[in-house]
Formats: sequence, structure tokens, C-alpha cells
Amino acid sequence: MSGNTIGTLFTVTTFGESHGPAIGCVVDGCPPGMELSEADIQPELDRRKPGTSRHVTQRQEADRVEILSGVFEGRTTGTPIALLIRNEDQRSKDYGNILDTFRPGHADYTYWQKYGIRDPRGGGRSSARLTAPVVGAAAIARKWLQLQYGTRFKGCMSQLGELPIPFESWEHVPNNPFFAANAGMIPQLEEYMDALRKSGDSCGARIDVVAENVPVGLGEPLYDKLDADIAHAMMGINAVKGVEIGAGFRSIAQKGSEHGDELTPEGFVTNNAGGILGGISTGQDITVSIAIKPTSSIRTPRRSIDKDGKPISVETFGRHDPCVGIRATPIAEAMLALVLMDHALRHRAQCGDVSVATPRIAAAVGRAG
Amino acid sequence: MSGNTIGTLFTVTTFGESHGPAIGCVVDGCPPGMELSEADIQPELDRRKPGTSRHVTQRQEADRVEILSGVFEGRTTGTPIALLIRNEDQRSKDYGNILDTFRPGHADYTYWQKYGIRDPRGGGRSSARLTAPVVGAAAIARKWLQLQYGTRFKGCMSQLGELPIPFESWEHVPNNPFFAANAGMIPQLEEYMDALRKSGDSCGARIDVVAENVPVGLGEPLYDKLDADIAHAMMGINAVKGVEIGAGFRSIAQKGSEHGDELTPEGFVTNNAGGILGGISTGQDITVSIAIKPTSSIRTPRRSIDKDGKPISVETFGRHDPCVGIRATPIAEAMLALVLMDHALRHRAQCGDVSVATPRIAAAVGRAG
Amino acid sequence: MSGNTIGTLFTVTTFGESHGPAIGCVVDGCPPGMELSEADIQPELDRRKPGTSRHVTQRQEADRVEILSGVFEGRTTGTPIALLIRNEDQRSKDYGNILDTFRPGHADYTYWQKYGIRDPRGGGRSSARLTAPVVGAAAIARKWLQLQYGTRFKGCMSQLGELPIPFESWEHVPNNPFFAANAGMIPQLEEYMDALRKSGDSCGARIDVVAENVPVGLGEPLYDKLDADIAHAMMGINAVKGVEIGAGFRSIAQKGSEHGDELTPEGFVTNNAGGILGGISTGQDITVSIAIKPTSSIRTPRRSIDKDGKPISVETFGRHDPCVGIRATPIAEAMLALVLMDHALRHRAQCGDVSVATPRIAAAVGRAG
Amino acid sequence: MSGNTIGTLFTVTTFGESHGPAIGCVVDGCPPGMELSEADIQPELDRRKPGTSRHVTQRQEADRVEILSGVFEGRTTGTPIALLIRNEDQRSKDYGNILDTFRPGHADYTYWQKYGIRDPRGGGRSSARLTAPVVGAAAIARKWLQLQYGTRFKGCMSQLGELPIPFESWEHVPNNPFFAANAGMIPQLEEYMDALRKSGDSCGARIDVVAENVPVGLGEPLYDKLDADIAHAMMGINAVKGVEIGAGFRSIAQKGSEHGDELTPEGFVTNNAGGILGGISTGQDITVSIAIKPTSSIRTPRRSIDKDGKPISVETFGRHDPCVGIRATPIAEAMLALVLMDHALRHRAQCGDVSVATPRIAAAVGRAG
Repeated sequence: MSGNTIGTLFTVTTFGESHGPAIGCVVDGCPPGMELSEADIQPELDRRKPGTSRHVTQRQEADRVEILSGVFEGRTTGTPIALLIRNEDQRSKDYGNILDTFRPGHADYTYWQKYGIRDPRGGGRSSARLTAPVVGAAAIARKWLQLQYGTRFKGCMSQLGELPIPFESWEHVPNNPFFAANAGMIPQLEEYMDALRKSGDSCGARIDVVAENVPVGLGEPLYDKLDADIAHAMMGINAVKGVEIGAGFRSIAQKGSEHGDELTPEGFVTNNAGGILGGISTGQDITVSIAIKPTSSIRTPRRSIDKDGKPISVETFGRHDPCVGIRATPIAEAMLALVLMDHALRHRAQCGDVSVATPRIAAAVGRAG
Repeated sequence: MSGNTIGTLFTVTTFGESHGPAIGCVVDGCPPGMELSEADIQPELDRRKPGTSRHVTQRQEADRVEILSGVFEGRTTGTPIALLIRNEDQRSKDYGNILDTFRPGHADYTYWQKYGIRDPRGGGRSSARLTAPVVGAAAIARKWLQLQYGTRFKGCMSQLGELPIPFESWEHVPNNPFFAANAGMIPQLEEYMDALRKSGDSCGARIDVVAENVPVGLGEPLYDKLDADIAHAMMGINAVKGVEIGAGFRSIAQKGSEHGDELTPEGFVTNNAGGILGGISTGQDITVSIAIKPTSSIRTPRRSIDKDGKPISVETFGRHDPCVGIRATPIAEAMLALVLMDHALRHRAQCGDVSVATPRIAAAVGRAG
Repeated sequence: MSGNTIGTLFTVTTFGESHGPAIGCVVDGCPPGMELSEADIQPELDRRKPGTSRHVTQRQEADRVEILSGVFEGRTTGTPIALLIRNEDQRSKDYGNILDTFRPGHADYTYWQKYGIRDPRGGGRSSARLTAPVVGAAAIARKWLQLQYGTRFKGCMSQLGELPIPFESWEHVPNNPFFAANAGMIPQLEEYMDALRKSGDSCGARIDVVAENVPVGLGEPLYDKLDADIAHAMMGINAVKGVEIGAGFRSIAQKGSEHGDELTPEGFVTNNAGGILGGISTGQDITVSIAIKPTSSIRTPRRSIDKDGKPISVETFGRHDPCVGIRATPIAEAMLALVLMDHALRHRAQCGDVSVATPRIAAAVGRAG
Repeated sequence: MSGNTIGTLFTVTTFGESHGPAIGCVVDGCPPGMELSEADIQPELDRRKPGTSRHVTQRQEADRVEILSGVFEGRTTGTPIALLIRNEDQRSKDYGNILDTFRPGHADYTYWQKYGIRDPRGGGRSSARLTAPVVGAAAIARKWLQLQYGTRFKGCMSQLGELPIPFESWEHVPNNPFFAANAGMIPQLEEYMDALRKSGDSCGARIDVVAENVPVGLGEPLYDKLDADIAHAMMGINAVKGVEIGAGFRSIAQKGSEHGDELTPEGFVTNNAGGILGGISTGQDITVSIAIKPTSSIRTPRRSIDKDGKPISVETFGRHDPCVGIRATPIAEAMLALVLMDHALRHRAQCGDVSVATPRIAAAVGRAG
């Protein structure tokens, strides 16, 4: 099991460092016969890329993806699909002062302890840049799931620093740099970020992601439950410190009579379960929320040590996101899509096509909740 | 990849249903030469078992474990270790009224949708009883980790329903039925549970687990990070709806200047990271907190449907935990131990023994935080 | 990946030592809804068990299998199926003289070098006894494959020591202790074995196995090809030193114009491919042949060393097969069945049911060859 | 588990089609800190590449490898190492006449049946060209194994068609186009191939590979034995139909008193085991021999069918190897190296460094055999 592969049947193996020549991935296990081209993938990468607003890192990368294999005459062949993205705007000199030092809150210290060596330029392998190929691979999964089941993925920022962002409508999400499902609060959020950037500090965020039209029956109990794999994928995203599903941590204070989602012939009445029961999808929307910590790359001087254990002070210059969460929404959607894709194939392996399963009670239970 | 196996190198494959003849597991990949007997495992099972207080299910099970293989003259041989636990106190008649119905909030509906068939007795495979062999397997891991690194695992309940339980001391944990690190609040908690049981309803809980003396360097970025695998293991425990590490969801409202744990020659100053940076252990305590939803098996009538989609009312009788969280602490500790064990072996595979890595800065950084 | 698990989607994890209390396995990933009971499994175990003729080990084991989980009201639930077989006739005193010595040709030396410890009784984990649970698990796979595709497995001994056994008819196989597809030669084979047993020496054997009615399309190129996985499974059987498929080693001296199996509307004309092209099943019979080395447990004195490196002489007493190959046929069939089962599920995961694939040319190509 | 990944801890995931823009692989799990550059890899690719003699395909490819990631300042970082090789000399028009037909003996038919679609140009994914990235990845493994244990890999052709090639010396291998360990027979082999090429037909070959200085203790019984994994890797090479280890198929006719390798204080006396006992390396040379079938791409007209099941005649033009075995030796060495590399890490995971194990009897047993 390589630690650089996501999934078990629909697998994504990534490679690349932030300042290396290229980053990319190999997607294996994609069902054959689906139409696929760069045009299916590039838009997702464009949603994610840096340099799109003053609130994120100013590194300019086109993130132009190239499909190197696995497609013939515009259709997937069932063989591995390799995606390549060339790095263009590495500025290694911005990182010169941290070669032998450890930036607090970063992976510098732990990578050095584990491997005895690290590529410090731009965070090397630990850089958030490595989310690009994953988002690209997920575009393939999103397309297949939509064609197969009509599944759709949505995400938004629901809190910025200490400011909750009330949900108004999904329509607003593409229209602001925060992926906020809110129009009225945008000026306030921009002011907040401008002040933050001036101060040189950073803040955290909360991101909500939703999957709609999820087929019932996905999940492999007891240890590869759908929610377990979702938690795994989300917690693995850079800077994530918490994951909750459905009512999440609110469940603690609920009573069973309140939390348990009742079933009627018209469907589920509520969705505290977040679309998953016993580790298997119910057919309801899957609702996930994640906590993103504030970026560790800040201009405020921080105490740290160097390789010899001597105390030093670290200030991080260079082009950084004052809030990593601002660009996290497409990444969280991508991880959710990859998990559902893998589980769709796993379910099909043991139990045959989901379409076989659902008619058992199709009419009775809708998608309420 | 079977969904009923935990881990990649130190693997635990479980089997059994709540009302079948036996439950158990096969542990593969245990390093050879370690002393092991039932005496190492039984105490952990005893911490977990039902019928120990009036606040938990009254099902009486001795949970006596038998080692069937993998040990010779008292030492592990490196071959698979099979643990067997016979079921003794199944009362199938308590479940008679749910054969063709789905209890809200349970896995009944989803198991039936996925497999087309389910063993309804006692929740079948989805029953929390299946945590017993996992706790047994984890006892083996705990022993090895303690011998190898001095690693220790601790856990406690930090909230019961809407009642926060302030941390007083680890010493109190074994002395009350709640695994609460608190002595003063116990009478209040018992009153709360007595009232709850009378009402027939249920409540949730929050459990905190900690690993101390964790070697630095465990974790396999980018996708098998230590925190990702911990989240996977925890979210997979029955009834868990949320997982957070370190400052968790509090990170959202923190600034980078506050969240980032500074390093000094004496060690880390704080531990918002929860002992993990970039997906790799730092050597600090690993701190995890989970949210457990209220039990779905309650005596309050609830709306549901049967297999034909007709509306019915469900009241669950039988012997159930009014708060599943009360017995969850040993299980959460067990999962944390299994994850660390697997990662200790994974790290050793690629980078050699951890003891080789740590001296790089051993003197400089202590275990502060 | 635990080394004690066969397969990736239909997995079999075995446990047990030759002289421990029990041996068994956990089968995970079995499709739900199939009728299953001990009656489906016991006959396969009976074919394999020791003490059935004077030509094999005289250890008496009923090999009675017990299903501990995974079945409800006579049908598989999709949850793990545990099989348990109690050991009854261990005679540890027969092994007393090899505790600190290494029998030439056995795994004693290598297990000790690898693990630093070994259970020497009856060969411990390396004993051929451990093929029993595998044969039991394969019975489940054989049933599913037969129901799903009509697939059948056959095997026979085609050479005993230096004596080739010409193929007469499959009908003869159950009627002699050798699994020979030949009636006329049996007296000669029995004489040969009687003489061998008297001499205290041992001989090798060649086993042929065939799978008929194999669906087309099974195999996962490039590295989990069907023939690669078959070779893996066969070479892993105790005492196997060679595996060939189709024309096997005879292919070397063939010309392309002779080896390549031509296709006509009535089907393939020949089957030098052995039913596999490019690592994927063609629909023709899969034909495999394996070489089994002579047993290393012989009464002839042999030179060896002890743990301190001093020269010793070893004579093995106890109850041993003078030809391990005599009982190997059911084991080889079992491994072939497990590989096909796993691949049926893997194919279904990525490409949907095989039945969808075959109609493309169903009428045109038959099963000739 | 993706079918396009070799290994479990040291993994190689390949991508690319014969006529696509590029082929390559991602190597994950490489221990950090080892010096690595293209100069370590290119020579192995040069040994393998096409167009080097008149006896192999005349396709001209430089096979120039580029390392895209996983190396910093000349040393491996422990992160994935991506290798890229651009295709230069695709001549798709040479394949024009087989778009809708199936060449006998090739994967055309099976790929189409399995996936419903195939890239026919140059054999697409099933082309032997895909052995290039594998050979590149193996160069990394070979280097690490040599530095760590002094392990060396050697291979040669031991039979061409019906002509056995007696072993004279390893020194001859690099000096002829056949990788034959023989000087005297080369003119005869060249005549043979010239005649074969004229006739338009093809022949098979036998390749022997050897690993020397193998550490004792590698292999994961019972189902990931070293010999099982070697058989898996070898049988998975294009055109291989048989694999044997040590005495292989000759074992059948041997007696136990002859086959079992005796042990003395000076070491093993013989090596019928081929360096593996009980699935674990003994420290002796690992000796493997494989059978390669004659190429299916021949100019002789052959009967086949098209997608509609109608009979056709197929003659294959284009640039093909009249004997695939001529270039197979580096590939077989590569697969053996990858298997040993993976097992070195697996052994280290469970049992610690091999160097810990061997001293137990280091002095007593040498490398005789």
C-alpha cells in the first residue's frame, strides 16, 4: 500500500513537488467507454488555481492539464489515465531562509524527522499545490458518477475565521472569491481578509460539502464504511483538523428521539445522519463539514529551532494564502467525489450494480431531508 | 481490499454476528518474539464488556477470549493470531418484532438495500458487540508499542448529553462507570442516566483519547497521513459522527499566530496540532476527540416503514445502552492503538526503525505540550 | 497487505498451526444471497484430508468444518464467513528430535532466520495441513462461480515421480487414491508407492488443473493478469517449484505459426494459450500444470546443522506423505477457483457484469480448443 | 488494488500506450536518502530498447528517461519518483489493417471483450513497450539492494527456439544481441534468426535469471511467499507461459534424498530449492527460469474473425520482434529486482532489518550452491 495512492479500485497515485518540473497523477480503474478529454478536467482545475484574487497566494500557474494515456478516440479505454501539469512559476528564492529551519505549524520538522531529508522549496511534497492533480482526477470521477447516477457535488465556505456565513443560496458560490453561498456578506468578508493580510497573520475556515443523488448502498462495513473513508479523505487534506457528518458534534447534545431520522413512505423526515447509516449511504444527501486551521506561513515572527536545536525566530515571506480555506472548497468536493467513486465500484464488485439494489423500495423512500 | 480488515501491515480481520455462535478476529503481521497470552488481552475486554453497571445494556457476556494460533511457548511467532470469543447470552426473542421493519437511525435499512438480506438479530454484523474482538486485537498492539516506545493510551468521557464533564485527573477514570476523568460530578451523571433510562430515550457523548510517548515520524503522506487514518478509524466506530484532532473545530476561529505551536530547545510550547503536523507525528501527545450520537434503539415510538414501504411505528425493546458512549472509551483507545501500530510498521518498512530517526534532534525537543 | 490473505476483493485470511487447537479462515467479500451450509464445504475437505489411503500420511483428522458467521437462514449475508476446523490428532512427540535442528528442504531454517522463533510441531504454520481451510473457502467460490457462469474445475495427477500417467478420462479421477485420470495404470502406481514407502524416500508429481466455462474478460492487466495471479497462487502451494499455462515450456520450441491459436466463427481451433491472452481469459478452458517436489520429510539420514551451526544428521520419523502430490489435486483446484472468483469480482467492479461483455461476439466464438 | 501497480510497499504504477504521447511510472515507497539520477536508470533502459540489432523490432526509440519528482539535490526524498519517457517513433499507419480484426495470439480479442474498446495502435497498453518504465523503476530497486545487501542480478537466454544454449560464462552476456552466456554459438543463433525473419515466422525462448547475495528471510508466507511473488511477476511479463524455480519441473522425477539440499557448516551443498524454502529466501542464489512463447505478430497468414464474427485472414506487417525473448532478459531481471525490493521492505516492517536476522547463524552457513 503506497501512502501516495487514494482509493482501492478507482485509484489515484500522485507525484510531484511544489517546485519540481511537474506534478501529476495516474488514475487507474476508470470504467471504459466514457467520453473524456482535457475539457472535462480543466474547469475544475481553474476553480482551484492560485492567483485568482487578492485574497489568495499570488503565485501564477496556468495549471494546464495534459492527458498522457488511457484515452483513445475520445473515450476511456480502462487503462491508466495519466494527467500531467507543468509547474511554471516557482520562485525558489522566496524560500531561501528556511533551508535549515523549521517553520512552526508546518510539516518541515516532521518530514525531516521521518525521512532525514526534505525538499524545502515551496513546502516540497507537503505543499497544497499537490491538490491540483487530485482535483483533476476527481473531475473524471465526478463525470462518471453524474452519468451513472446523476450524482452532484456542491460545496461552500460556511465560516471564515470567527465569522459565520449564513447559507443563502448555492447560486452565489461561483460569484465570489470565497465560495460562500451568500451575497450580502461578501464586502464584510473582503474587509476582514484585507485587514488580515495587512497584519501578516492568518485565519481558519469551515467548509461544507454535499453530495446529492447518491445511490443507496455505498459503503463497506465494518472498517471501510463510507463515512470512515470520507473522514479519511477530508482529514488528509492539508490543514484540516476536524471532520463531521450530518449533525456531527451537535449529536452529542441531542436525544435519540430527536436525532434518529424517521422514515415515511414519502422518504426520510430529517437528515441528522448526513446520508449515512451503519456506514452505508441511505440515498439522502451526504453532508460533511470540515475545520481548516489557519495557515502556518505568516509574517509574524515565531519561535522555532534549527537542525542543531538552537532557538531561532522565523518569519515567512513569499506568496502564501492568508486563509488556506479560501481555495479549499473544490478540493473538499474532489475528495468526496473520489470516495464515492471508489465505493461505487466496490459495491458493484460484491453486490452487482446499484441499480439492481434500489428498486427494492424505490417508490417508498424519496430524497427528503 | 476487504472491508472487514483494519490496517495494512498489522491487520485485524474480524468476523461474527451479534447472535451467531462466536465472534473473533485474525491478527496478521505482529512482530515475532513478543510474550503474549490471554492474560494480556482479557483485561481490555473486561473494561469494555456489557452488563457491568445499570447504565449499560444488561446482556451478560463473559467475553472470554481464546488464542487459537500464532503463539508458541508464550511468544508470538509472526504468524496469524486468531482470537475467538463465544457468544453466550443471545436473546433472539427480544428482536422478534423488527424482522421486516427498519428501526430509524439503525443500519437495518441500509444493510437491506445493499445486500438484499440481513441478519436482524441483535443488529447482526452492525452490532456494537463486534467491537470486542477489535479491543482484543488492540491489546496486542498496545503491548508492543509500550515495549517498543513506551507509548501509552488514555481516554475519558468529556461530555454526556448536554453536560460537559470537566477534566480533573486520569486517576478517576477507572473508578466510575462513565470513564469520566472526574469524581465530583459522578452523582449528577448517574441521576441524569437514571432519568434517561426511565424515559426510554437516549443521549450522545464526547470521548477524548490521548496517546503519550509517541515516536516522531509516523504517518504516510500524502494520503495515509496519521491523522487521516485516525479519523478513518474513529469515524468507523459505531455511532460516531465527528472527529477532531488537537484544536479541532476551535482552529477555525484561531489566528495563525495563536494556532501554530512554537518550538523551543525545551520542546513545543503548545499542542494545537494535536501531535501531528503534515500528517506525521511530532512526538507530542496525540489528542483526539469524537462525537457519539444518541442510540437509535429507544422505547419511544418512532415512525418508519416496512419492506413494502408501508408506514409503521417502531418501539425498540430489549437490552440496549441508553448511551452508547458510556462504553466507547476503550474502543476509541483501541482504534488509536491499532492505527499507531500499523504506522510504526509502515514507517519501519520505508525508513528503518524509528529509533534511528529520533536522535537527530532528540535532546532539543522534549514532549512539552 | 498481510501475507496471510489470498485475494483482493474475495479474500481468504487463514490462521492456525499444524499442532495448535484449531485452524480456519475468514472469507470476506462473498456476494450476498447465496445458499450456503457446511454441506457445501465438507465434501471438498473430505477429498483432501489425510489418512484416506496407505499412500498418504496416516494422521487421522475428521476435518469437520463449522461455519461461525456470515450466513443467516441458510444464505450468505455479505458479511465475513468464518470457517473453523478443530485439530484432533496432533502427535507432538513424533517431532521431538527436530526442535533445535533444521530438516533439509523444509522451511525450518528459513522460518527461524526470518522470525527468530518457530513452532516446530508438525511444521507449524508451514505444514500442508493449512491447505484445509483454503480448500474450504474455495468451496464457497466454486459454488458461486458455478451458479453464476457454470464454471467447473477439474484436476488430476499427470505424472508420479518418473512415471507419466496418460490421460484416459476424468471419470477415473475419484476412483483411485492418486486423482489419476487413468484406470489401467493404478496397480503400477500403487506398487511404485509401496516400494517408495519401504525405502523411506519420497518422490515428486505433476498436477494438471482445468477450469471450464470460464467467462471471457477476467484478468487485470498489466500486473494482475489472470495468468500472473494463477502462477502466484499455484507457486504458493507447499512444495510447488514450477507452473505453466497452456503449452507452457513447450512454447519455447514452437513457431508462431504453430503456437498462435487461430479463431474461426466456430471458435478457437487450438488452445496453446491455455485460455488466457494478454492476461485476460478468452472463454476457452484454462489449463495449468504444476511441478511438485519430493517431500523433504524422509527417513533417509541427511546432513544438516543445528542452531549453533554444528553438523548433525537428520532422519524424519512421524506420519508423512511420501508424495505430497498425491493429495495436491484438490488444493490446486481450490487455488484456481479462488483466483477466478477474485477476478470475477474485480472485472465486475470496473466493467460491470461479465454477462454484459460476452454478447459482443457470443455466437461467433465457441469453446473449441 | 489497481491492476497497474506492482508491489505493496515499494510500488510501481505505470501508465501509457505504445502510440500515445508518453509512457512512464510512479515509484512510491523508495527509502529516502539514496543518491539517484537519470544516470542510474538510463543504462538499464538502453539494454532493453528496440532497434539495437537486426534481430529485433526496428522501431527507433531513444527511451530517454526524465525524473519528474522525488529527488532533491541528488537524493531520494521518500516521496514518489515519477519517470517519464516520451514516445518518438510511433508509426500508426503500420497498424491500419487490424482496427476491427483480432490478431491470433494477441490480446486484441480479450481487451475488446473485457473493456468494449481498445487502442489498437502498436498493441496499445498490451505492447511490450510498456516494459520500459518497469525496467526504469527496477534500476532504482537494484541500486538500493546492491547498496544495502550487495545483491546482484544476472540473466541470460538459455534456449532459442529449439536450440539449447549451453552456459559458458556471464562475461559473454553483454557481447551479443541475445544476452546469451555463450560465445561459440552466436553465429549459429544469428543464422537461425536470419532464416526465421525471412520466413516471416517467430520462435520462443527460455530465459534464466539469478539473484546473488540475497539476504535470508525475505518472503511473507503463506500467500505472499517470495517464490509466489516471483512467479506472479514473471508470468505477468508479456508472452511468458511458464515459470520454474530451482530444479523446477525436474523436481518431479527427483527423489527426496536427491532434491533436498543438505546443510553443512560451510553452507548448502546443492541448490535444488533455487534459494527459497517455505517461501522464504535462504541466502543462496535465487534461480528462476521462464518460458517465452513465439511472437504472435507474424507475416504468415492466419485465420481469425472480425468484430461481427466473420472469418478473415490476418497477416501482420510492421516492425516486430521475431523473437520477443531476445530482449526479455533485462525485463526478467527487472521483475526479480522489484519483487526482492518489495520483500526487503515487507520483512523490515514486521521483523526489523534483515541484518539483525542473519547473524544468528552467519558464520555457519555460507553461500554455497
